[in-house]
Amino acid sequence: MTDLKEGVCLSAFWYSHEQCCWTSNETTFADRDKCPQWQKWAELMTGHTESAGAYVLNYFLYVLWALFFSFLAVSLVRVFAPYACGSGIPEIKTILSGFIIRGYLGKWTLLIKTVTLVLAVSSGLSLGKEGPLVHVACCCGNLFCSLFSKYSKNEGKRREVLSAAAAAGVSVAFGAPIGGVLFSLEEVSYYFPLKTLWRSFFAALVAAFTLRSINPFGNNRLVLFYVEYHTPWYMAELVPFILLGVFGGLWGTLFIRGNIAWCRRRKTTQLGKYPVLEVIVVTGITAILAFPNPYTRRSTSELISELFNDCGALESSQLCDYINNPNMTRPVDDIPDRPAGPGVYTALWQLALALIFKIVITIFTFGMKIPSGLFIPSMAVGAIAGRIVGIAVEQMAYHHHDWIIFKNWCRPGADCVTPGLYAMVGAAACLGGVTRMTVSLVVIMFELTGGLEYIVPLMAAAVTSKWVADAFGKEGIYEAHIRLNGYPYLDQDEFTHRTLATDVMRPRRSEPPLAVLTQDSTTVEDVETLIKETDYNGFPVVVSRESERLIGFVQRRDLILAIKNARQKQDGVVSNSIVYFTEDAPQQPPSNPQPLKLRRILNLSPFTVTDHTPMETVVDIFRKLGLRQCLVTRSGRLLGIITKKDVLRHMAQMMNQDPESIMFN
Amino acid sequence: MTDLKEGVCLSAFWYSHEQCCWTSNETTFADRDKCPQWQKWAELMTGHTESAGAYVLNYFLYVLWALFFSFLAVSLVRVFAPYACGSGIPEIKTILSGFIIRGYLGKWTLLIKTVTLVLAVSSGLSLGKEGPLVHVACCCGNLFCSLFSKYSKNEGKRREVLSAAAAAGVSVAFGAPIGGVLFSLEEVSYYFPLKTLWRSFFAALVAAFTLRSINPFGNNRLVLFYVEYHTPWYMAELVPFILLGVFGGLWGTLFIRGNIAWCRRRKTTQLGKYPVLEVIVVTGITAILAFPNPYTRRSTSELISELFNDCGALESSQLCDYINNPNMTRPVDDIPDRPAGPGVYTALWQLALALIFKIVITIFTFGMKIPSGLFIPSMAVGAIAGRIVGIAVEQMAYHHHDWIIFKNWCRPGADCVTPGLYAMVGAAACLGGVTRMTVSLVVIMFELTGGLEYIVPLMAAAVTSKWVADAFGKEGIYEAHIRLNGYPYLDQDEFTHRTLATDVMRPRRSEPPLAVLTQDSTTVEDVETLIKETDYNGFPVVVSRESERLIGFVQRRDLILAIKNARQKQDGVVSNSIVYFTEDAPQQPPSNPQPLKLRRILNLSPFTVTDHTPMETVVDIFRKLGLRQCLVTRSGRLLGIITKKDVLRHMAQMMNQDPESIMFN
Repeated sequence: MTDLKEGVCLSAFWYSHEQCCWTSNETTFADRDKCPQWQKWAELMTGHTESAGAYVLNYFLYVLWALFFSFLAVSLVRVFAPYACGSGIPEIKTILSGFIIRGYLGKWTLLIKTVTLVLAVSSGLSLGKEGPLVHVACCCGNLFCSLFSKYSKNEGKRREVLSAAAAAGVSVAFGAPIGGVLFSLEEVSYYFPLKTLWRSFFAALVAAFTLRSINPFGNNRLVLFYVEYHTPWYMAELVPFILLGVFGGLWGTLFIRGNIAWCRRRKTTQLGKYPVLEVIVVTGITAILAFPNPYTRRSTSELISELFNDCGALESSQLCDYINNPNMTRPVDDIPDRPAGPGVYTALWQLALALIFKIVITIFTFGMKIPSGLFIPSMAVGAIAGRIVGIAVEQMAYHHHDWIIFKNWCRPGADCVTPGLYAMVGAAACLGGVTRMTVSLVVIMFELTGGLEYIVPLMAAAVTSKWVADAFGKEGIYEAHIRLNGYPYLDQDEFTHRTLATDVMRPRRSEPPLAVLTQDSTTVEDVETLIKETDYNGFPVVVSRESERLIGFVQRRDLILAIKNARQKQDGVVSNSIVYFTEDAPQQPPSNPQPLKLRRILNLSPFTVTDHTPMETVVDIFRKLGLRQCLVTRSGRLLGIITKKDVLRHMAQMMNQDPESIMFN
Repeated sequence: MTDLKEGVCLSAFWYSHEQCCWTSNETTFADRDKCPQWQKWAELMTGHTESAGAYVLNYFLYVLWALFFSFLAVSLVRVFAPYACGSGIPEIKTILSGFIIRGYLGKWTLLIKTVTLVLAVSSGLSLGKEGPLVHVACCCGNLFCSLFSKYSKNEGKRREVLSAAAAAGVSVAFGAPIGGVLFSLEEVSYYFPLKTLWRSFFAALVAAFTLRSINPFGNNRLVLFYVEYHTPWYMAELVPFILLGVFGGLWGTLFIRGNIAWCRRRKTTQLGKYPVLEVIVVTGITAILAFPNPYTRRSTSELISELFNDCGALESSQLCDYINNPNMTRPVDDIPDRPAGPGVYTALWQLALALIFKIVITIFTFGMKIPSGLFIPSMAVGAIAGRIVGIAVEQMAYHHHDWIIFKNWCRPGADCVTPGLYAMVGAAACLGGVTRMTVSLVVIMFELTGGLEYIVPLMAAAVTSKWVADAFGKEGIYEAHIRLNGYPYLDQDEFTHRTLATDVMRPRRSEPPLAVLTQDSTTVEDVETLIKETDYNGFPVVVSRESERLIGFVQRRDLILAIKNARQKQDGVVSNSIVYFTEDAPQQPPSNPQPLKLRRILNLSPFTVTDHTPMETVVDIFRKLGLRQCLVTRSGRLLGIITKKDVLRHMAQMMNQDPESIMFN
């Protein structure tokens, strides 16, 4: 569908340009994409190929197709599944931390996101498919869970399945099973016990195996951007690699700040009310600006693939237009450094323009109401910058091979600089700057390119990029979006403030006392009044209002259900029956109404902390044990309660944010 | 030093055989190891090279050198650093889970383990260097920690450094930085927050970078067993790969059971009293049996390297002695399958004998009182088995290429089976069976071999091997050794028994009541008596003996120090002074002795659970929060205490083990 914007395959309209020309007789690489079966729109409609009119017609149809695809995508999302928009990773992170968003992982989201992702990518917008594929995989995982009661009834087990699904999603998106497992561990999951690691690994294995059986790239390889370089890297090259890391960090900061500012504007102003119009306008601008530049006109994956590639002897790309030195005849594999020809200089200009274009448009694209990932656009930005730096270093090494730094590794006639490697390093740096991944980033880059030899350059760039980006702000793009949307996500950073549990617990001093039940002196009517007048999720049960010694905790929904059942089925339970949470109800005179024994719904081991517990410890407990609430006592006496909501509000306050911006279900 | 067992380099005695012959003029691969500078001992001493006498002399000196190296190693360990023996990984796992073994990570251990590891590997024993290198790296990490008070005073931070050190250790041992990080995560570390992941990654980066700068293998590569195969794998090959996985699982089970049985015998019988003799005897047997077989005579790393290698045109190895088919002239890279020559059949016999030898001797070697890792021996077992299977499949495919299963992928004259790949898969399977690693195993195999294309075969073998081995027993070799040695390690498996906190807490029914302090009615003398008569690490403080309401917890050592200080420096504090843990001591008549206020040493937020809390939850809390003790209450009243020791004893009991076998510090 991406290629449909430019032309059509006469033998079968559903073939892409490349597939269309596979059967062609033109075997040389240069003519490979000029096969008679593939016709551009102007050629098909008017017969002309090179005239100005044909160019304008192609241009017009390119924009029109793009608008059509993106309009279809945004309309489907609006009408059928509003949750299908965006990358989905911030929401999945939040869900895995214990929050529930109904319908977010439902079948409609699955269906619509799958369809609209295809449309969105085809429309030529500056977005990728990785995040949405993780979302789609998690929808599948969630739907599978609902088939088995073991998983559908246990939120913890369900989350383990979702962690594994996220790994499988990346495994399929990039053909990177191990990178997928690490991405799930590092970026997506909240609890990741070793058991989940092992299961995610298995899920990713099956995903990779299935992908390889289908063999979508037609080359028996899982690897998306397979590269093969013929020269090792040299120590001195670490300097440009680290510079690329710095660039990646700066780009990450710029992107996160710009994108969050724009998304906040969308949330708070009139802009957010016209999502379809917004998508149409952005698609229009993208298509109009992208068409004239060959590096932005093609799909972003193809662009990255070309930038990663080393210039072999058979390469016809403009980027490989070096001036041939007729004195040298070398084997095919090992082409020495040569002066750049005019094609390379043209390419450099076009790449520089493409870089600026991609940087600006990606900021506005991510977060629109269509499925959009940002791995591919980030990598494209980095790959363009890297290739430009790579060519610059190569030409410098060629023209100044007598400089001290080049002397040891760049003799004339040797092949010593691989611009494609710079593109790869740049892509890793930019992706790292935006997402702040580390280990998973490097592993994904390996699995994407097969370049296991280049581990140190990749790691150096990833480390630098993370450092630079962290210097400007600790949050990666996903955390930034979580905070922007106010999801109740308890992040893993250390809580360093010196507040105590007593400062956070409720009731506060001015508030009415805590709503509690007593173990043997509350009537059914009292309980019903309490349920009606409050909306708490549960109530502590104490020995008596005087001693306030804690016995247990009872869930609101269990209480409602138990009373309803008793009223219907148990004779003699009336409004002034006494509710007993003790082991045995005392013998009653027959004149008294029959008591209601509710010990079975009482949680006898509620979590407690003392009022002097530092909030640092409380936050740690909430995080590691996944609590929803915790009771606060002093010398056995119940003082108050801290819920996850209270903890999140307190943390927001401590960071000078508006605690009311956090959303709760 | 390994090569010193066989001969000496005349130009420089410290050169290995390979280094010695680098400068030789014999450029063909076949004669590469027959350079004049390198002389076997018999040649040097008698001038004969091929006679029976020379063989016997070489044999004799081989055994003698082996005995000398291992005697030196075991003596150094015995005399200077008893902790330097073994692989060290079980102990480091235990240390990272919160146990303290004094001196285990000290400078003497570092020094002696480094020296004796070299000797042990050179002696030709069936052991590797990976585990000991992790131990050595952790010693370095620990010593660095002691330089900075931030790390030396905080056990948690120190453990984070040790986790990173373990990653760096594997990074250096195998040139596998990412595998190292994952090994640390999956096998070694207990708590592994994302922050540690990122720091381990950085440590591993620097380790890999330093290793590459030193360039120890002289080929600008980090990779230890670099392989390059020229054919993809085919779906049908999954069957032998899975069979290798089954073999790996069975080997893992056999090894763990045999090794643990032997180690238990060593611990419980007279055998354990003669560690030096044991090492000498095992070295003698190893050397005597190893010398006649060329595949066991050489070092295990070289063996693995040869088994992993594909047979190229220039390969002179016996394993590559295929019958040349003169009708075919193909490029060097792509040698078609051919019938095996006599050399291959000889090699198969020798490999089969080597396999049996390695399997048996490794069981007795691991656990002796010298540094010993088991990555390399396990991989050798798997590589031998894999290569045998690989050659079998290859010959079957050659001779029966008309069988249905071979028809689609093995036309005559095509290169369709790579026996080296089978060796690689077998090595992964055996390593997985012994250690039960999953993701880290596959990543280490990648980084060892550069074979990123073979992710699915490696994962399939790893998964099968883990399943098979797990069917026979859940524990990997490291957990088995932890249990054998009775280290107090709280493993990460789910605790599934239905016991409650009340069943585990002390005091039991028949025991005297819990030793507690009251907040305002205990005298200094009472406290001193309590300290003298008990050896508990701390005491709960309650409001009064009647109400038993918990106020806090006070550490034994703080109490001792505070009383000692008060007695020395504070006038008027005498034996019948009352100790106050309350906020303010009440006004006393002047006749009474001055009170001792100790609220500042009172921990006001001790961890509590109720007596009804399921032990499943308690174990989870101990594990996730790293507690040492937890108080048990019922409706605010203190009932008892659960220490980590109690939890471990209870878990041992539940698994029908002797709870007294667990060691405590």
